Amino acid sequence: MKFATLRDGSLDGRLIVVSRDLRQAVALPAVAPTLHDAIRRWEAVAPALGAAYDALNRGRQPDAFAFDPRACAAPLPRSPQWCDASAFLNHGRLMERAFNTPPIPQFDTVPVMYQGASDDFLGPHDDMPLPSEADGIDFEGEFGVVLGAVPMGATPAQALDCVRLVVQINDWSLRALGPHEMKTGFGFLQAKPSTSFAPVAVTPDELGAGWRDGRVALRLHVQWNGERFGEPHGSEMNFSFGELVAHAARTRRLTAGTIVGSGTVSNVARSAGSACIAERRVIEIIDAGAASTGFMRFGDTVRMQARFDDGSEGPFGTIEQRVVRAGAASS
Amino acid sequence: MKFATLRDGSLDGRLIVVSRDLRQAVALPAVAPTLHDAIRRWEAVAPALGAAYDALNRGRQPDAFAFDPRACAAPLPRSPQWCDASAFLNHGRLMERAFNTPPIPQFDTVPVMYQGASDDFLGPHDDMPLPSEADGIDFEGEFGVVLGAVPMGATPAQALDCVRLVVQINDWSLRALGPHEMKTGFGFLQAKPSTSFAPVAVTPDELGAGWRDGRVALRLHVQWNGERFGEPHGSEMNFSFGELVAHAARTRRLTAGTIVGSGTVSNVARSAGSACIAERRVIEIIDAGAASTGFMRFGDTVRMQARFDDGSEGPFGTIEQRVVRAGAASS
Repeated sequence: MKFATLRDGSLDGRLIVVSRDLRQAVALPAVAPTLHDAIRRWEAVAPALGAAYDALNRGRQPDAFAFDPRACAAPLPRSPQWCDASAFLNHGRLMERAFNTPPIPQFDTVPVMYQGASDDFLGPHDDMPLPSEADGIDFEGEFGVVLGAVPMGATPAQALDCVRLVVQINDWSLRALGPHEMKTGFGFLQAKPSTSFAPVAVTPDELGAGWRDGRVALRLHVQWNGERFGEPHGSEMNFSFGELVAHAARTRRLTAGTIVGSGTVSNVARSAGSACIAERRVIEIIDAGAASTGFMRFGDTVRMQARFDDGSEGPFGTIEQRVVRAGAASS
Repeated sequence: MKFATLRDGSLDGRLIVVSRDLRQAVALPAVAPTLHDAIRRWEAVAPALGAAYDALNRGRQPDAFAFDPRACAAPLPRSPQWCDASAFLNHGRLMERAFNTPPIPQFDTVPVMYQGASDDFLGPHDDMPLPSEADGIDFEGEFGVVLGAVPMGATPAQALDCVRLVVQINDWSLRALGPHEMKTGFGFLQAKPSTSFAPVAVTPDELGAGWRDGRVALRLHVQWNGERFGEPHGSEMNFSFGELVAHAARTRRLTAGTIVGSGTVSNVARSAGSACIAERRVIEIIDAGAASTGFMRFGDTVRMQARFDDGSEGPFGTIEQRVVRAGAASS
């Protein structure tokens, strides 16, 4: 199944079921008015949502309308928790060099994860308002999972069973602020403004062979100002989503709708490019002694789209956002 | 005004207005069904809530009922964001010695703050379920503020104007897990299980002279298993809540209902005792070369109550919680 959320002025928006080809949609307010509600009552509502999805795909939904990603908020405009890992160790090791921070202890064996703000997620075409270019504006292409209720102490296998949906994420980052916040030991706060999401959240079966070993085995194609930036493959994730969710649930329960992210998708092969600017910059430093690529400027755009291994468009739709000065008019 | 939230099986619970003496309460579902709703529509609902509060205090509320703190959830059982600072530098400096972590850069001039989970707050008399005594179970007595919507880039003065309510907090901590999470730079996650709240959230005017310079100038009396542990005074906070909120809003807007905490209340004078075990332990190490106090055991209780300078009971009611093994039956 595929889902999206239309902006309607409410905190949770209005749930729509989206057709497999992302062309048609239908709302089922009597079944589940919001995606958060659907996730909370998943066993009760999944059959009716599945029947509507099938009818939509067969062109037999009388109330269907054209799907418009520009009318979409994030699939969950707010969520109970947003816990983001750094599960591609290739990225993490490069970032240690970029930030000049000490090696993270047990980095190979214990996931690192920060708690992010989850009250104000942005939609796939929302402008990203930020106060200053001097903060080192960067995108981060990621995958994530939306969970049903996870009990405290769940094992990785139990945690993986709690995955309801898979999502594609742009985890905006301010690189000038990150190193100080890491050095405090209290973690990222100012360095992580509103996170953004591709329009469509999908059940894992929609990924076919692209969902394996608790990982999203798709390429994430990233463009900056219309130019190719990279297309790293999600299969190189060093921890599975089951392991990441179990880590998050070690001393707390996760309420239904919690989102856990992979961290920046990153591949060992340089030919794949990168899914964030900071990673490219540190590679430039390693290879050439200095970074030649700057961070984003106001007016810049970033585009992110997952694709299947045959090159066809992935299931999440596309993130396409522009950075704007906070306080300036937003589209 | 004083507010509390009754458990009713919903995510946000049911708002009640509580009398000044904490004896009577009334629900006004037609005005505001939940505290989150009231905070979001504050200007529209405050007059009606204020009129009900006045009538309740004069014994003229026909629908009034006895206030029962044991029926209360946290005033906000979930909130959009929970950002907790370490604004008592005396505590922070002692914790650096306790954790053996490097000095935090710019600790005197830039607040440190972590993003906490805000989906599953506990009420004042809820048992605290945790998986293991070996994690170093500790309480932390704090104050906090509940905010209206704060725009990105708000100044400390603007931020202080966004304070709607003041709350009293028990920020449960797992001390065996904290140092590793600080060393990763990603901040606390497993080390910070569900945060707990005193039953009553109050408008700043309820504190009288106890609300000054953007600080809660009350003593926080803490007892562990019925024995006095400390009563540090909130006036020694090194950053005001205006400064803390402005820090949190530097690169993001804070949606209405966000809670910002002070960090553990701590005084330079040793005679005040402490509001968390870790602080007492490091003082023991400094004074005697070794810690003689252990952390909490299953079955232990902690009690926290703010008091005015004349010794009378503060406005928030009392936190009284018991630590239990996760999975065991809860009261």
